[in-house]
Amino acid sequence: MSTNVNASVGVIGTGLMGKPMAHNLLKAGYEVYVHNRTASKLDELGAAGAVAPGSPRAVAEKSDVVITMLIDWETTREAIFGKDGILEGIRPGSLFVDMGTTTPKNARDVAKAFAEKGVDSIDAPVSGGEQGAIAGTLTIMAGGTEAAFERAKPIFAAMGKTYIRIGESGAGQIAKACNQLIVAGTVELVAEALALARAYGVDPALVREVMLPGFAGSKILEFQGKKMLDRNFKPGGPIKTHMKDRENVLEASAATGIDFPAAKAAFERVKIVVERGEGDLDHTALFKLFD
Amino acid sequence: MSTNVNASVGVIGTGLMGKPMAHNLLKAGYEVYVHNRTASKLDELGAAGAVAPGSPRAVAEKSDVVITMLIDWETTREAIFGKDGILEGIRPGSLFVDMGTTTPKNARDVAKAFAEKGVDSIDAPVSGGEQGAIAGTLTIMAGGTEAAFERAKPIFAAMGKTYIRIGESGAGQIAKACNQLIVAGTVELVAEALALARAYGVDPALVREVMLPGFAGSKILEFQGKKMLDRNFKPGGPIKTHMKDRENVLEASAATGIDFPAAKAAFERVKIVVERGEGDLDHTALFKLFD
Repeated sequence: MSTNVNASVGVIGTGLMGKPMAHNLLKAGYEVYVHNRTASKLDELGAAGAVAPGSPRAVAEKSDVVITMLIDWETTREAIFGKDGILEGIRPGSLFVDMGTTTPKNARDVAKAFAEKGVDSIDAPVSGGEQGAIAGTLTIMAGGTEAAFERAKPIFAAMGKTYIRIGESGAGQIAKACNQLIVAGTVELVAEALALARAYGVDPALVREVMLPGFAGSKILEFQGKKMLDRNFKPGGPIKTHMKDRENVLEASAATGIDFPAAKAAFERVKIVVERGEGDLDHTALFKLFD
Repeated sequence: MSTNVNASVGVIGTGLMGKPMAHNLLKAGYEVYVHNRTASKLDELGAAGAVAPGSPRAVAEKSDVVITMLIDWETTREAIFGKDGILEGIRPGSLFVDMGTTTPKNARDVAKAFAEKGVDSIDAPVSGGEQGAIAGTLTIMAGGTEAAFERAKPIFAAMGKTYIRIGESGAGQIAKACNQLIVAGTVELVAEALALARAYGVDPALVREVMLPGFAGSKILEFQGKKMLDRNFKPGGPIKTHMKDRENVLEASAATGIDFPAAKAAFERVKIVVERGEGDLDHTALFKLFD
């Protein structure tokens, strides 16, 4: 059963990411219900045609598909399990999709709770940032049954460009952890390389330029490398969100007995940036550690 | 003064990289003189029209531009400073170009020795590997005077696609060190990410696929990531060559007082691979450490 555009979709969490995602669902013709703790963040969506019934429970009662896109696990857990939460309102046969980032274990616990209500669920964290959310070009990494994924596809198509079912519940979060490991690690490597050039008195802009077409080339070198050289630390995604990724990798390391030395080194740098009070800067703030 | 195609070019070191580079110089119309310690490696170039006068000194006597492309600094130093070496034969007014990888300090010492003979020189290490050398699409990172770089341009154009003057003598080697820091580090990060997926029982091929279009995307994830999944450890470049890059980064760290924690972590993994006797495998052998 595919979700058609007559379906209603609930979006809980309409911040940096959730707001443009909800806009794209409206544009695709869905009936959209929204909720946010800071109610003022709902005004623009209301003007565009979304309805805000007042609580996660009320959103769930009205929606065929309920999406959460919240900043962290505590907020997500409260929206799902808390008073007036999603589990109180959701109807059997509907679909739940958490598009935020959490651990694989949390994702599996959520799937279990919804299964007990007769509700399919998918963990579907994204990459692509605010820009990708606005443009509708997010990458969506999904964990859940094939049937649930098939139902979600039209909705993913409204918000993303690439959406792949990685495996069962939790698999989307595992893919996201892998993604963040590479992203944070590469930002640190680019910062290290540009800092090395600068320390030797060589123009880091020329070094970046000569590296771009070769095997050192990456989207991070292209975009974040440029931001570092411009000393533009304005957040796409604030670096403090990587603290969650750091915990994910440390938890994965403990759970699997595998060491991830380069990623751990990079995440320790992230921790230093956050601890010195610069967590709201972009993750390119790793470059500032070399000042 | 630009080098024209009537010029003679000497290539000392005709191995994996030097041989196809010399072929491309022949194709571009240069008169090419070659030398290699293992003389049998000269046969194919001889058949293609190159002349092998028997020593680095003899090559230098006959060439307007002398290129070295040797495996390590010891071999390069011997070819330059040793008995029957380049310095004994090179003519004032000619140009010396070391395209191998060494430290910035070595590059500056070499430049000084040639300057005393009235010879311009450039350190011009490359990236792009054997494939890039064959296709004539190398990236060339040059250090030297602007005048020397202008003279070398037509020759670089015959072997490479991107060639940028980074700065004075040694700057090419600094850029190469930056490049290798990112390459080795990213290979390690990709290995870590794919190992994490596999340890959780998720298909690493799907995880690679979903990561490719996003910010985790890179040439390393695309090509080396694929090789890891195929368990293809056949060397493009053997991982032991990264031991030189490791020393470069450790030396840079000591010289500048800057720590490069993610790069150092990656290079320690390289060291483990080499120490357990797998140094002749591809740098994707970093993935084998997770078996």
